[in-house]
Amino acid sequence: MPDDPGNFPEPGFLLRSWPLGRHPAEVSVPSSVGEPRKSYDVPVEVPGRVPPEGPRAEEEARLREIPRVIGQLGKTYIVCETEEGLLLVDQHAAHERVVYEKLRRSMEAHRPEVQQLLMPLELELNHRDAGAVMALQEELASLGIEIEHFGGNTFLVRAVPALLGQVDWETFLSELLPEIRMKGMSQGELLDRALKVMACHGAVRAGKHMSMQEMEGLLEELAAADLPQNCPHGRPVTKMIRYREIEKFFKRIV
Amino acid sequence: MPDDPGNFPEPGFLLRSWPLGRHPAEVSVPSSVGEPRKSYDVPVEVPGRVPPEGPRAEEEARLREIPRVIGQLGKTYIVCETEEGLLLVDQHAAHERVVYEKLRRSMEAHRPEVQQLLMPLELELNHRDAGAVMALQEELASLGIEIEHFGGNTFLVRAVPALLGQVDWETFLSELLPEIRMKGMSQGELLDRALKVMACHGAVRAGKHMSMQEMEGLLEELAAADLPQNCPHGRPVTKMIRYREIEKFFKRIV
Repeated sequence: MPDDPGNFPEPGFLLRSWPLGRHPAEVSVPSSVGEPRKSYDVPVEVPGRVPPEGPRAEEEARLREIPRVIGQLGKTYIVCETEEGLLLVDQHAAHERVVYEKLRRSMEAHRPEVQQLLMPLELELNHRDAGAVMALQEELASLGIEIEHFGGNTFLVRAVPALLGQVDWETFLSELLPEIRMKGMSQGELLDRALKVMACHGAVRAGKHMSMQEMEGLLEELAAADLPQNCPHGRPVTKMIRYREIEKFFKRIV
Repeated sequence: MPDDPGNFPEPGFLLRSWPLGRHPAEVSVPSSVGEPRKSYDVPVEVPGRVPPEGPRAEEEARLREIPRVIGQLGKTYIVCETEEGLLLVDQHAAHERVVYEKLRRSMEAHRPEVQQLLMPLELELNHRDAGAVMALQEELASLGIEIEHFGGNTFLVRAVPALLGQVDWETFLSELLPEIRMKGMSQGELLDRALKVMACHGAVRAGKHMSMQEMEGLLEELAAADLPQNCPHGRPVTKMIRYREIEKFFKRIV
Protein backbone atom coordinates (compact mmCIF):
# COMPACT_ATOMS: atom_id res chain seq x y z
CA MET A 1 0.00 0.00 0.00
CA PRO A 2 1.42 3.42 -0.76
CA ASP A 3 2.70 5.48 2.16
CA ASP A 4 0.88 8.61 1.05
CA PRO A 5 -1.68 9.37 3.78
CA GLY A 6 -4.11 10.95 1.26
CA ASN A 7 -6.27 9.02 -1.13
CA PHE A 8 -4.16 9.86 -4.19
CA PRO A 9 -1.33 7.36 -4.71
CA GLU A 10 2.18 8.71 -5.23
CA PRO A 11 3.07 9.56 -8.86
CA GLY A 12 3.56 6.52 -11.01
CA PHE A 13 1.65 4.26 -8.68
CA LEU A 14 -1.16 3.75 -11.15
CA LEU A 15 1.27 3.23 -13.97
CA ARG A 16 3.24 0.70 -11.98
CA SER A 17 0.07 -1.25 -11.39
CA TRP A 18 -1.01 -1.00 -15.03
CA PRO A 19 -3.00 -4.19 -15.41
CA LEU A 20 -2.08 -5.20 -18.94
CA GLY A 21 1.40 -6.24 -17.98
CA ARG A 22 3.12 -3.61 -20.11
CA HIS A 23 6.19 -1.93 -18.76
CA PRO A 24 5.30 1.67 -17.79
CA ALA A 25 8.01 2.98 -20.13
CA GLU A 26 6.10 1.57 -23.10
CA VAL A 27 2.93 3.22 -21.99
CA SER A 28 3.98 6.72 -21.10
CA VAL A 29 6.86 8.95 -20.10
CA PRO A 30 6.53 11.76 -17.56
CA SER A 31 6.38 15.17 -19.21
CA SER A 32 8.09 18.25 -17.82
CA VAL A 33 6.75 21.74 -17.36
CA GLY A 34 7.32 23.96 -20.37
CA GLU A 35 8.28 21.16 -22.71
CA PRO A 36 6.45 21.10 -26.03
CA ARG A 37 3.36 18.96 -25.78
CA LYS A 38 3.55 15.56 -27.35
CA SER A 39 0.89 13.16 -28.42
CA TYR A 40 0.26 9.85 -26.83
CA ASP A 41 1.24 7.46 -29.60
CA VAL A 42 0.52 4.11 -27.99
CA PRO A 43 -3.26 3.90 -28.44
CA VAL A 44 -4.85 1.12 -26.43
CA GLU A 45 -6.71 -1.22 -28.77
CA VAL A 46 -10.03 -2.50 -27.52
CA PRO A 47 -11.30 -5.50 -29.47
CA GLY A 48 -14.52 -4.75 -31.27
CA ARG A 49 -14.44 -1.06 -30.50
CA VAL A 50 -15.59 1.12 -33.38
CA PRO A 51 -13.80 4.48 -33.42
CA PRO A 52 -16.25 7.39 -33.33
CA GLU A 53 -16.65 9.74 -36.31
CA GLY A 54 -17.48 13.45 -36.74
CA PRO A 55 -17.26 15.98 -33.90
CA ARG A 56 -16.93 13.21 -31.33
CA ALA A 57 -13.88 11.86 -33.16
CA GLU A 58 -12.38 15.35 -33.14
CA GLU A 59 -13.00 15.70 -29.42
CA GLU A 60 -11.39 12.33 -28.82
CA ALA A 61 -8.40 13.16 -30.96
CA ARG A 62 -7.96 16.32 -28.89
CA LEU A 63 -7.99 14.30 -25.68
CA ARG A 64 -5.22 12.07 -27.04
CA GLU A 65 -2.93 15.08 -27.00
CA ILE A 66 -1.35 15.74 -23.64
CA PRO A 67 -1.91 19.41 -22.85
CA ARG A 68 0.55 21.63 -20.99
CA VAL A 69 -0.47 21.93 -17.34
CA ILE A 70 -0.60 25.56 -16.15
CA GLY A 71 -1.70 24.77 -12.58
CA GLN A 72 -4.57 23.83 -10.30
CA LEU A 73 -7.77 25.85 -9.77
CA GLY A 74 -9.72 25.69 -6.52
CA LYS A 75 -7.99 22.40 -5.66
CA THR A 76 -10.53 20.80 -8.04
CA TYR A 77 -9.65 21.55 -11.66
CA ILE A 78 -6.45 21.16 -13.66
CA VAL A 79 -5.91 24.26 -15.81
CA CYS A 80 -4.15 23.46 -19.09
CA GLU A 81 -3.05 25.19 -22.26
CA THR A 82 -3.64 23.57 -25.64
CA GLU A 83 -3.29 24.88 -29.17
CA GLU A 84 -7.01 25.64 -29.14
CA GLY A 85 -7.29 27.43 -25.81
CA LEU A 86 -7.76 26.92 -22.10
CA LEU A 87 -8.66 23.38 -21.07
CA LEU A 88 -10.19 22.73 -17.65
CA VAL A 89 -10.04 19.14 -16.40
CA ASP A 90 -12.14 17.95 -13.44
CA GLN A 91 -9.47 16.08 -11.47
CA HIS A 92 -11.86 13.66 -9.78
CA ALA A 93 -13.83 12.82 -12.93
CA ALA A 94 -10.60 12.30 -14.88
CA HIS A 95 -9.06 10.04 -12.27
CA GLU A 96 -12.32 8.14 -11.83
CA ARG A 97 -12.31 7.39 -15.56
CA VAL A 98 -8.69 6.21 -15.41
CA VAL A 99 -9.19 4.03 -12.32
CA TYR A 100 -12.45 2.59 -13.69
CA GLU A 101 -10.81 1.47 -16.93
CA LYS A 102 -7.87 -0.05 -15.11
CA LEU A 103 -10.16 -1.96 -12.74
CA ARG A 104 -12.33 -3.16 -15.59
CA ARG A 105 -9.38 -4.47 -17.58
CA SER A 106 -7.99 -6.10 -14.51
CA MET A 107 -11.31 -7.87 -13.87
CA GLU A 108 -11.73 -8.83 -17.52
CA ALA A 109 -8.26 -10.36 -17.50
CA HIS A 110 -9.49 -12.50 -14.54
CA ARG A 111 -6.59 -11.49 -12.45
CA PRO A 112 -7.59 -8.51 -10.30
CA GLU A 113 -4.50 -6.95 -8.75
CA VAL A 114 -4.91 -7.76 -5.08
CA GLN A 115 -2.99 -6.29 -2.19
CA GLN A 116 -2.72 -8.60 0.85
CA LEU A 117 -2.87 -6.50 4.02
CA LEU A 118 -0.10 -7.19 6.57
CA MET A 119 -2.49 -6.34 9.37
CA PRO A 120 -6.15 -7.20 8.63
CA LEU A 121 -8.49 -4.26 8.90
CA GLU A 122 -11.25 -4.65 11.49
CA LEU A 123 -14.68 -3.40 10.45
CA GLU A 124 -17.76 -3.05 12.61
CA LEU A 125 -20.77 -3.04 10.29
CA ASN A 126 -24.44 -2.38 10.95
CA HIS A 127 -26.79 -5.37 10.95
CA ARG A 128 -28.01 -4.88 7.38
CA ASP A 129 -24.51 -4.49 5.88
CA ALA A 130 -23.23 -7.41 7.94
CA GLY A 131 -25.90 -9.64 6.44
CA ALA A 132 -25.11 -8.40 2.95
CA VAL A 133 -21.37 -9.00 3.35
CA MET A 134 -21.99 -12.58 4.50
CA ALA A 135 -24.33 -13.23 1.57
CA LEU A 136 -22.01 -11.60 -0.98
CA GLN A 137 -18.63 -12.89 0.22
CA GLU A 138 -17.96 -14.65 -3.09
CA GLU A 139 -18.87 -11.62 -5.21
CA LEU A 140 -16.68 -9.42 -3.04
CA ALA A 141 -13.77 -11.85 -3.41
CA SER A 142 -14.17 -11.77 -7.20
CA LEU A 143 -13.77 -7.97 -6.96
CA GLY A 144 -10.53 -8.45 -5.02
CA ILE A 145 -12.04 -7.73 -1.60
CA GLU A 146 -11.31 -10.60 0.78
CA ILE A 147 -13.43 -10.13 3.86
CA GLU A 148 -13.95 -12.63 6.69
CA HIS A 149 -16.64 -12.88 9.35
CA PHE A 150 -15.05 -12.51 12.79
CA GLY A 151 -18.19 -12.83 14.94
CA GLY A 152 -21.25 -10.67 15.55
CA ASN A 153 -21.15 -7.70 13.18
CA THR A 154 -17.36 -7.64 13.10
CA PHE A 155 -15.44 -8.41 9.94
CA LEU A 156 -11.79 -8.58 8.94
CA VAL A 157 -10.63 -7.23 5.57
CA ARG A 158 -7.63 -9.38 4.58
CA ALA A 159 -7.00 -8.24 0.98
CA VAL A 160 -8.09 -5.26 -1.14
CA PRO A 161 -7.88 -4.34 -4.85
CA ALA A 162 -4.42 -2.86 -5.42
CA LEU A 163 -5.86 0.25 -7.08
CA LEU A 164 -7.86 1.17 -3.99
CA GLY A 165 -5.08 2.47 -1.82
CA GLN A 166 -6.45 4.13 1.22
CA VAL A 167 -10.19 4.21 1.02
CA ASP A 168 -12.50 4.63 3.98
CA TRP A 169 -13.69 1.02 4.01
CA GLU A 170 -16.87 1.54 6.00
CA THR A 171 -18.09 4.33 3.73
CA PHE A 172 -16.96 2.37 0.72
CA LEU A 173 -18.85 -0.80 1.69
CA SER A 174 -21.96 1.17 2.66
CA GLU A 175 -22.04 2.46 -0.94
CA LEU A 176 -20.92 -0.75 -2.62
CA LEU A 177 -23.29 -3.19 -0.92
CA PRO A 178 -26.62 -1.65 -2.04
CA GLU A 179 -25.25 -1.63 -5.61
CA ILE A 180 -24.36 -5.30 -5.67
CA ARG A 181 -27.21 -6.81 -3.63
CA MET A 182 -29.90 -5.77 -6.13
CA LYS A 183 -31.71 -8.76 -7.54
CA GLY A 184 -32.05 -9.65 -11.19
CA MET A 185 -28.79 -8.15 -12.38
CA SER A 186 -26.54 -10.00 -14.75
CA GLN A 187 -22.98 -10.70 -13.61
CA GLY A 188 -21.81 -8.04 -16.05
CA GLU A 189 -24.13 -5.35 -14.66
CA LEU A 190 -23.17 -6.23 -11.11
CA LEU A 191 -19.48 -5.97 -11.96
CA ASP A 192 -19.93 -2.64 -13.71
CA ARG A 193 -21.85 -1.11 -10.79
CA ALA A 194 -19.21 -2.32 -8.37
CA LEU A 195 -16.40 -0.95 -10.53
CA LYS A 196 -18.02 2.49 -10.62
CA VAL A 197 -18.20 2.66 -6.84
CA MET A 198 -14.64 1.39 -6.59
CA ALA A 199 -13.39 3.91 -9.17
CA CYS A 200 -15.09 6.76 -7.34
CA HIS A 201 -13.49 5.79 -4.04
CA GLY A 202 -10.12 5.08 -5.59
CA ALA A 203 -9.95 8.42 -7.43
CA VAL A 204 -8.40 11.63 -6.15
CA ARG A 205 -11.08 13.84 -4.64
CA ALA A 206 -11.96 17.45 -5.40
CA GLY A 207 -10.43 19.69 -2.75
CA LYS A 208 -7.11 17.86 -2.79
CA HIS A 209 -3.94 19.68 -3.78
CA MET A 210 -2.14 18.00 -6.67
CA SER A 211 1.49 18.61 -7.62
CA MET A 212 2.45 19.49 -11.20
CA GLN A 213 3.87 15.98 -11.56
CA GLU A 214 0.66 14.35 -10.34
CA MET A 215 -1.45 16.48 -12.70
CA GLU A 216 0.80 15.70 -15.66
CA GLY A 217 0.75 11.99 -14.83
CA LEU A 218 -3.03 11.99 -14.63
CA LEU A 219 -3.40 13.74 -18.01
CA GLU A 220 -1.10 11.20 -19.61
CA GLU A 221 -3.20 8.39 -18.26
CA LEU A 222 -6.38 10.13 -19.35
CA ALA A 223 -4.99 10.49 -22.88
CA ALA A 224 -4.56 6.70 -22.92
CA ALA A 225 -8.09 5.95 -21.70
CA ASP A 226 -10.67 4.42 -24.02
CA LEU A 227 -13.35 6.98 -23.25
CA PRO A 228 -11.59 10.03 -21.84
CA GLN A 229 -14.54 12.41 -22.37
CA ASN A 230 -16.72 11.25 -19.49
CA CYS A 231 -16.35 9.80 -16.03
CA PRO A 232 -18.00 6.36 -15.51
CA HIS A 233 -21.14 8.14 -14.22
CA GLY A 234 -21.36 10.20 -17.41
CA ARG A 235 -20.17 13.56 -16.04
CA PRO A 236 -17.87 15.51 -18.40
CA VAL A 237 -14.15 15.31 -17.70
CA THR A 238 -12.96 18.36 -19.66
CA LYS A 239 -14.15 21.82 -20.66
CA MET A 240 -12.44 23.72 -23.47
CA ILE A 241 -12.59 27.52 -23.56
CA ARG A 242 -11.34 28.37 -27.03
CA TYR A 243 -8.96 31.23 -27.79
CA ARG A 244 -11.59 32.54 -30.19
CA GLU A 245 -14.10 33.02 -27.37
CA ILE A 246 -11.48 34.59 -25.12
CA GLU A 247 -10.26 36.91 -27.87
CA LYS A 248 -13.80 37.99 -28.62
CA PHE A 249 -14.44 38.80 -25.00
CA PHE A 250 -11.27 40.89 -24.73
CA LYS A 251 -12.10 42.55 -28.08
CA ARG A 252 -8.86 41.31 -29.58
CA ILE A 253 -11.00 40.13 -32.51
CA VAL A 254 -14.51 41.18 -33.56
CA MET B 1 17.14 52.62 -19.56
CA PRO B 2 16.63 49.07 -18.32
CA ASP B 3 18.98 46.40 -19.62
CA ASP B 4 16.14 44.01 -20.45
CA PRO B 5 16.18 43.57 -24.23
CA GLY B 6 12.40 43.06 -24.38
CA ASN B 7 9.84 45.82 -24.03
CA PHE B 8 8.81 44.79 -20.53
CA PRO B 9 10.93 46.49 -17.87
CA GLU B 10 12.48 44.34 -15.18
CA PRO B 11 10.25 43.74 -12.09
CA GLY B 12 9.95 46.79 -9.91
CA PHE B 13 11.01 49.18 -12.64
CA LEU B 14 7.59 50.75 -12.86
CA LEU B 15 7.35 50.98 -9.11
CA ARG B 16 10.79 52.56 -8.82
CA SER B 17 9.73 55.20 -11.30
CA TRP B 18 6.39 55.75 -9.54
CA PRO B 19 5.81 59.43 -10.26
CA LEU B 20 4.15 60.52 -7.05
CA GLY B 21 7.38 60.46 -5.11
CA ARG B 22 6.25 57.73 -2.72
CA HIS B 23 8.73 55.09 -1.72
CA PRO B 24 7.83 51.83 -3.45
CA ALA B 25 7.58 50.08 -0.08
CA GLU B 26 4.63 52.31 0.81
CA VAL B 27 2.90 51.45 -2.40
CA SER B 28 3.22 47.71 -2.67
CA VAL B 29 5.19 44.70 -1.58
CA PRO B 30 5.96 41.82 -3.91
CA SER B 31 3.79 38.76 -3.31
CA SER B 32 5.10 35.21 -3.44
CA VAL B 33 3.60 32.19 -5.14
CA GLY B 34 1.28 30.23 -2.90
CA GLU B 35 0.96 32.90 -0.23
CA PRO B 36 -2.58 33.74 0.78
CA ARG B 37 -3.97 36.57 -1.31
CA LYS B 38 -4.01 39.95 0.29
CA SER B 39 -5.87 43.08 -0.52
CA TYR B 40 -4.23 46.24 -1.67
CA ASP B 41 -4.85 48.54 1.27
CA VAL B 42 -3.23 51.77 0.07
CA PRO B 43 -5.88 53.12 -2.30
CA VAL B 44 -4.69 55.98 -4.47
CA GLU B 45 -6.89 59.02 -3.87
CA VAL B 46 -7.83 60.98 -6.95
CA PRO B 47 -9.16 64.45 -6.09
CA GLY B 48 -12.74 64.86 -7.18
CA ARG B 49 -13.18 61.22 -8.08
CA VAL B 50 -16.59 59.85 -7.14
CA PRO B 51 -16.44 56.15 -6.28
CA PRO B 52 -18.85 54.08 -8.39
CA GLU B 53 -21.86 52.32 -6.87
CA GLY B 54 -23.76 49.10 -7.60
CA PRO B 55 -22.38 46.26 -9.72
CA ARG B 56 -19.56 48.47 -10.97
CA ALA B 57 -18.48 49.08 -7.36
CA GLU B 58 -18.49 45.33 -6.75
CA GLU B 59 -16.39 44.73 -9.83
CA GLU B 60 -13.96 47.40 -8.72
CA ALA B 61 -13.75 46.00 -5.20
CA ARG B 62 -12.91 42.61 -6.72
CA LEU B 63 -10.11 44.15 -8.76
CA ARG B 64 -8.62 45.66 -5.57
CA GLU B 65 -7.95 42.13 -4.36
CA ILE B 66 -4.74 40.67 -5.67
CA PRO B 67 -5.59 37.23 -7.06
CA ARG B 68 -3.32 34.21 -6.90
CA VAL B 69 -1.50 33.76 -10.21
CA ILE B 70 -1.77 30.21 -11.58
CA GLY B 71 0.24 30.83 -14.74
CA GLN B 72 0.26 32.27 -18.24
CA LEU B 73 -2.02 31.17 -21.11
CA GLY B 74 -0.96 31.49 -24.74
CA LYS B 75 1.70 34.04 -23.73
CA THR B 76 -1.17 36.55 -23.66
CA TYR B 77 -3.37 36.02 -20.61
CA ILE B 78 -2.58 35.75 -16.90
CA VAL B 79 -4.61 32.89 -15.39
CA CYS B 80 -5.57 33.57 -11.76
CA GLU B 81 -7.57 31.99 -8.98
CA THR B 82 -9.87 34.10 -6.84
CA GLU B 83 -12.49 33.16 -4.28
CA GLU B 84 -15.12 33.49 -7.02
CA GLY B 85 -13.47 31.48 -9.74
CA LEU B 86 -11.01 31.64 -12.61
CA LEU B 87 -9.87 35.15 -13.55
CA LEU B 88 -8.28 35.78 -16.94
CA VAL B 89 -6.28 39.01 -17.28
CA ASP B 90 -5.22 40.37 -20.68
CA GLN B 91 -1.57 41.15 -19.95
CA HIS B 92 -1.26 43.91 -22.54
CA ALA B 93 -4.52 45.66 -21.62
CA ALA B 94 -3.64 45.49 -17.91
CA HIS B 95 -0.16 46.89 -18.39
CA GLU B 96 -1.45 49.56 -20.78
CA ARG B 97 -3.87 50.73 -18.08
CA VAL B 98 -1.06 50.82 -15.49
CA VAL B 99 1.40 52.67 -17.77
CA TYR B 100 -1.29 55.10 -18.93
CA GLU B 101 -2.18 56.12 -15.38
CA LYS B 102 1.46 56.52 -14.41
CA LEU B 103 2.16 58.68 -17.47
CA ARG B 104 -0.93 60.80 -16.85
CA ARG B 105 -0.01 61.43 -13.24
CA SER B 106 3.51 62.23 -14.23
CA MET B 107 2.25 64.77 -16.80
CA GLU B 108 -0.28 66.26 -14.42
CA ALA B 109 2.45 66.75 -11.83
CA HIS B 110 4.32 68.76 -14.52
CA ARG B 111 7.40 66.72 -14.11
CA PRO B 112 7.43 63.92 -16.64
CA GLU B 113 10.13 61.41 -15.76
CA VAL B 114 12.64 61.82 -18.55
CA GLN B 115 15.52 59.53 -19.40
CA GLN B 116 18.45 61.28 -21.11
CA LEU B 117 20.00 58.92 -23.66
CA LEU B 118 23.78 58.48 -23.42
CA MET B 119 23.93 57.96 -27.16
CA PRO B 120 21.27 59.87 -29.10
CA LEU B 121 19.08 57.69 -31.27
CA GLU B 122 19.23 58.49 -34.99
CA LEU B 123 15.88 58.38 -36.81
CA GLU B 124 15.29 58.58 -40.53
CA LEU B 125 11.66 59.70 -41.04
CA ASN B 126 9.53 59.98 -44.15
CA HIS B 127 8.84 63.43 -45.48
CA ARG B 128 5.42 63.79 -43.89
CA ASP B 129 6.54 62.65 -40.39
CA ALA B 130 9.67 64.82 -40.64
CA GLY B 131 7.51 67.89 -41.23
CA ALA B 132 5.23 66.97 -38.34
CA VAL B 133 8.12 66.44 -35.94
CA MET B 134 9.53 69.88 -36.80
CA ALA B 135 6.14 71.51 -36.30
CA LEU B 136 5.40 69.67 -33.05
CA GLN B 137 8.82 69.81 -31.39
CA GLU B 138 7.43 71.74 -28.41
CA GLU B 139 4.49 69.36 -27.86
CA LEU B 140 6.83 66.38 -28.09
CA ALA B 141 9.16 67.96 -25.51
CA SER B 142 6.20 68.47 -23.16
CA LEU B 143 5.58 64.71 -23.46
CA GLY B 144 9.19 64.03 -22.48
CA ILE B 145 10.39 63.32 -26.03
CA GLU B 146 13.36 65.56 -26.87
CA ILE B 147 14.00 65.28 -30.57
CA GLU B 148 16.34 67.42 -32.66
CA HIS B 149 16.51 68.05 -36.40
CA PHE B 150 19.87 66.82 -37.72
CA GLY B 151 19.40 67.73 -41.41
CA GLY B 152 17.19 66.44 -44.23
CA ASN B 153 14.77 63.87 -42.82
CA THR B 154 17.19 62.77 -40.11
CA PHE B 155 16.45 63.43 -36.45
CA LEU B 156 18.19 62.69 -33.15
CA VAL B 157 16.20 61.55 -30.10
CA ARG B 158 18.09 62.89 -27.06
CA ALA B 159 15.65 62.08 -24.23
CA VAL B 160 12.61 59.84 -23.82
CA PRO B 161 9.88 59.35 -21.17
CA ALA B 162 11.35 57.06 -18.50
CA LEU B 163 8.34 54.72 -18.70
CA LEU B 164 8.94 54.01 -22.37
CA GLY B 165 11.90 51.72 -22.07
CA GLN B 166 12.72 50.15 -25.38
CA VAL B 167 10.08 51.15 -27.86
CA ASP B 168 10.53 50.98 -31.61
CA TRP B 169 10.76 54.76 -32.08
CA GLU B 170 9.93 54.86 -35.78
CA THR B 171 6.75 52.83 -35.34
CA PHE B 172 5.93 54.75 -32.20
CA LEU B 173 6.26 58.18 -33.90
CA SER B 174 4.35 57.01 -36.96
CA GLU B 175 1.42 56.28 -34.63
CA LEU B 176 1.87 59.24 -32.33
CA LEU B 177 2.21 62.00 -34.92
CA PRO B 178 -1.20 61.59 -36.62
CA GLU B 179 -2.80 61.64 -33.16
CA ILE B 180 -1.23 64.93 -32.11
CA ARG B 181 -1.25 66.87 -35.37
CA MET B 182 -5.04 66.92 -35.63
CA LYS B 183 -6.41 70.48 -35.60
CA GLY B 184 -8.94 71.87 -33.15
CA MET B 185 -8.03 69.70 -30.19
CA SER B 186 -7.71 71.13 -26.70
CA GLN B 187 -4.37 70.70 -24.95
CA GLY B 188 -6.08 68.13 -22.68
CA GLU B 189 -7.37 66.06 -25.61
CA LEU B 190 -4.01 66.16 -27.34
CA LEU B 191 -2.26 65.02 -24.18
CA ASP B 192 -4.71 62.19 -23.62
CA ARG B 193 -4.36 60.90 -27.19
CA ALA B 194 -0.59 61.02 -26.89
CA LEU B 195 -0.65 59.22 -23.55
CA LYS B 196 -2.74 56.40 -25.01
CA VAL B 197 -0.26 55.82 -27.82
CA MET B 198 2.60 56.03 -25.33
CA ALA B 199 0.90 53.59 -22.93
CA CYS B 200 0.27 51.11 -25.73
CA HIS B 201 3.91 51.17 -26.82
CA GLY B 202 5.23 51.12 -23.25
CA ALA B 203 3.12 48.10 -22.23
CA VAL B 204 4.12 44.46 -22.41
CA ARG B 205 2.82 42.89 -25.62
CA ALA B 206 0.71 39.82 -26.11
CA GLY B 207 2.94 36.92 -27.13
CA LYS B 208 5.59 37.75 -24.56
CA HIS B 209 6.47 35.26 -21.85
CA MET B 210 6.06 36.71 -18.36
CA SER B 211 7.59 35.23 -15.22
CA MET B 212 5.43 34.55 -12.15
CA GLN B 213 7.09 37.54 -10.47
CA GLU B 214 6.30 39.85 -13.40
CA MET B 215 2.67 38.69 -13.50
CA GLU B 216 2.27 39.15 -9.75
CA GLY B 217 3.87 42.60 -9.91
CA LEU B 218 1.54 43.64 -12.72
CA LEU B 219 -1.57 42.48 -10.82
CA GLU B 220 -0.47 44.47 -7.77
CA GLU B 221 -0.10 47.57 -9.89
CA LEU B 222 -3.43 46.93 -11.57
CA ALA B 223 -5.10 46.61 -8.17
CA ALA B 224 -3.79 50.09 -7.39
CA ALA B 225 -5.02 51.68 -10.64
CA ASP B 226 -7.92 54.14 -10.64
CA LEU B 227 -9.85 52.34 -13.38
CA PRO B 228 -8.57 48.78 -13.49
CA GLN B 229 -11.53 47.42 -15.48
CA ASN B 230 -10.59 48.76 -18.89
CA CYS B 231 -7.51 49.61 -20.88
CA PRO B 232 -7.26 53.27 -22.01
CA HIS B 233 -8.90 52.32 -25.32
CA GLY B 234 -11.85 50.82 -23.50
CA ARG B 235 -11.06 47.12 -23.99
CA PRO B 236 -11.77 44.88 -20.98
CA VAL B 237 -8.80 43.94 -18.80
CA THR B 238 -10.27 40.95 -16.96
CA LYS B 239 -12.73 38.13 -17.51
CA MET B 240 -14.12 36.15 -14.58
CA ILE B 241 -15.34 32.58 -15.07
CA ARG B 242 -17.21 31.83 -11.87
CA TYR B 243 -17.01 28.53 -10.00
CA ARG B 244 -20.79 28.33 -10.32
CA GLU B 245 -20.57 28.24 -14.12
CA ILE B 246 -17.73 25.73 -14.04
CA GLU B 247 -19.51 23.50 -11.52
CA LYS B 248 -22.65 23.56 -13.63
CA PHE B 249 -20.74 22.53 -16.71
CA PHE B 250 -19.08 19.63 -14.92
CA LYS B 251 -22.45 18.67 -13.36
CA ARG B 252 -21.03 19.11 -9.88
CA ILE B 253 -24.17 21.19 -9.20
CA VAL B 254 -27.46 21.30 -11.09
